[in-house]
Amino acid sequence: MLSVEEATRRVLATVRPLPPETVPFTAALGRVLRQDITADRDFPPFNRVAMDGIALAYSAVASGQVRFVIEKTQFAGQPPAPLTDPSAAIEIMTGAALPPGTDAVVRYEDILIEEDEAGRRTATLQVPPLAVGHNVHRQASDRQQGDLLLPAGTLLGSAEIAVAATVGATNLLVARHPKVAVVSTGDELIDIGEQPLAHQIRRSNSYMLAAAVQQAGGTAEVFHFNDDPEALRNGLPSLLRDYDAVLLSGGVSKGKADFLPTSLQEVGVEQLFHEVQQRPGKPFWFGQHPNGAVVFALPGNPVSTFVNYYRYAQPWLRAIQLPAPATEPTAYAVLATDFTFRPRITHFLLVSLESTSDGRVLAHPERAHGSGDLASLLPSDGFLELPPELDFFPAGTVLPAWRFR
Amino acid sequence: MLSVEEATRRVLATVRPLPPETVPFTAALGRVLRQDITADRDFPPFNRVAMDGIALAYSAVASGQVRFVIEKTQFAGQPPAPLTDPSAAIEIMTGAALPPGTDAVVRYEDILIEEDEAGRRTATLQVPPLAVGHNVHRQASDRQQGDLLLPAGTLLGSAEIAVAATVGATNLLVARHPKVAVVSTGDELIDIGEQPLAHQIRRSNSYMLAAAVQQAGGTAEVFHFNDDPEALRNGLPSLLRDYDAVLLSGGVSKGKADFLPTSLQEVGVEQLFHEVQQRPGKPFWFGQHPNGAVVFALPGNPVSTFVNYYRYAQPWLRAIQLPAPATEPTAYAVLATDFTFRPRITHFLLVSLESTSDGRVLAHPERAHGSGDLASLLPSDGFLELPPELDFFPAGTVLPAWRFR
Repeated sequence: MLSVEEATRRVLATVRPLPPETVPFTAALGRVLRQDITADRDFPPFNRVAMDGIALAYSAVASGQVRFVIEKTQFAGQPPAPLTDPSAAIEIMTGAALPPGTDAVVRYEDILIEEDEAGRRTATLQVPPLAVGHNVHRQASDRQQGDLLLPAGTLLGSAEIAVAATVGATNLLVARHPKVAVVSTGDELIDIGEQPLAHQIRRSNSYMLAAAVQQAGGTAEVFHFNDDPEALRNGLPSLLRDYDAVLLSGGVSKGKADFLPTSLQEVGVEQLFHEVQQRPGKPFWFGQHPNGAVVFALPGNPVSTFVNYYRYAQPWLRAIQLPAPATEPTAYAVLATDFTFRPRITHFLLVSLESTSDGRVLAHPERAHGSGDLASLLPSDGFLELPPELDFFPAGTVLPAWRFR
Repeated sequence: MLSVEEATRRVLATVRPLPPETVPFTAALGRVLRQDITADRDFPPFNRVAMDGIALAYSAVASGQVRFVIEKTQFAGQPPAPLTDPSAAIEIMTGAALPPGTDAVVRYEDILIEEDEAGRRTATLQVPPLAVGHNVHRQASDRQQGDLLLPAGTLLGSAEIAVAATVGATNLLVARHPKVAVVSTGDELIDIGEQPLAHQIRRSNSYMLAAAVQQAGGTAEVFHFNDDPEALRNGLPSLLRDYDAVLLSGGVSKGKADFLPTSLQEVGVEQLFHEVQQRPGKPFWFGQHPNGAVVFALPGNPVSTFVNYYRYAQPWLRAIQLPAPATEPTAYAVLATDFTFRPRITHFLLVSLESTSDGRVLAHPERAHGSGDLASLLPSDGFLELPPELDFFPAGTVLPAWRFR
């Protein structure tokens, strides 16, 4: 049976970049950029005044001058008019372009302004500027025109949206949304609006998966098939044609009603693996259709579905939005209490995660009644990946951690 | 001047819960629940078969029996028909309700099934079950009918959506979206579709704030006012009437063009503080209108705007979605290199965060050219909050960390 490592490798080997599309930058939050964004101008584009005060020529200060006549006032947004008298000063506001003839700014806090009867104003330095460029944010000191600001592959957050605005990138080329069909199977499952009979339960996995797909930047549609090979053979082909991925839950263990692997192969999906050395989720089936669509056939117990989605499908959905394959960095957490797990297979252990005042992330195992216990997900923030080689994990062990919140 | 702690206290003192609204549960991802969700049935609702195999009466096993005639097969979703002969067995599938007369399940892997010429099938135990309840997920063992599953105040993620589906909660009462008006001020700022003159720059803060508000569960609309008290006096009243919060950037320092605090007070906004002992963001102004709307007037330098939004406004936007005041837990990170900051004020230090294989979160300070350097946000994941009491922070110091990704 396959190791988790090998299963991961086979899943990620099917990754092909999604085609890009153009969207207004105001609709690009959470999308993955598929073009490089460069600086259209220097950053800052001019010598930018960084404090409210007066602009002057530092050479006058260096020669010992402390009183400066204020020639005029320049606000941010006004074209900078030159200093006409090199021994005078210009009152100036934060954000303004430094006027020609000046090279330093002294803030209000460090000067005393007086006005005579004729309305002539003078500033006396209390704390003289130290050098040329004092309180000036020099043109191009942050970035130069043409510098790469946002490389293709960047996930667009609020700071990236601001940078796009600054360079006037009103439209952005981004990966289109991954399109996912979420399919539940199982005759015991009824629609959530119906009243279940004693032996029935409502479908919940599909809605969980659809929500999780949204969080990964995808769009999801929900379908249900009964445990009927005919229904599957008829329904699957259009899903394989119209979606990037089909997420199935249930129907992949060894029972009489678990004909899903057979049905998938009958409609042309090549099996890339079936069964992984892991708990929960041993019966996980994965395959790919010749047209490129992949099928994650996840075990139907809610915790199995959930954990295997976050362990395999979500990284795949993120990877196809990138311009080139990349691996996400591994996150780690510290086991808070001793934990024993006997079978020599990988164990995904539900945990709540805590940021402690010593700078560590502490993982508290959540009591679960097995992979059917949907409610055990509620106090959990993610799961630890316990390697198959060990069966006892003392408190303090550091392990790879997967977050779902 | 106010401490960061006191400024935080005054901001959060204005929190009032937003009214709730009803939405379909499929549209509730990322919303805050404003009703309790309880179990409408036991979890599981019946004694649920946890493995494919045969169901039998454990008493027969206890008396030494190893061969069982298979009476019939029961699939998941079928009403359970009782075992008629207590020494026989029922072939059964995962997810089925355990049939009356049986109390344990032996999985296929632990039995040998043979069929005689008449088509009569028998199962021989290879590994007998250990006790009553073997491979049975007992009714109500996870949760009982009436148990509280999701308390009001829960942020709805994928697991919570699944729980809502399971209990048939097709509509959910959630906090309505916070409505935020984002306002930029400054005559040097032009629209992002325009070509800037040498002394002008494009507006970026508003789009950054609008994106950040979305991430906090709010809806944002963007406005711009020039540096003109008249325009502000005319424009602000309708924003204060129609929005829960007004986020302003720029216009709050001590310059000649910074009449925003005056204009805000003229339209009835009570100043709750102006200036905080912090960098960046000392000129931060905060107030509240008698109708309840609050005004975050953030300093206009991009890094100041950004950091102060995440430090003050985002926790406020999250808090008003809750049914009752609550504080978010503090997150911590470990400073990766020595850092010196002389002024005895709180410093928000931009950092990239790394999860290391010893289970700690390491914070690497990002080189920044001051609060005007928008691009310095790009490599950063958040900021550390350096307390005012110290000026030297050696590598290894653990500090409160605020993430924006």
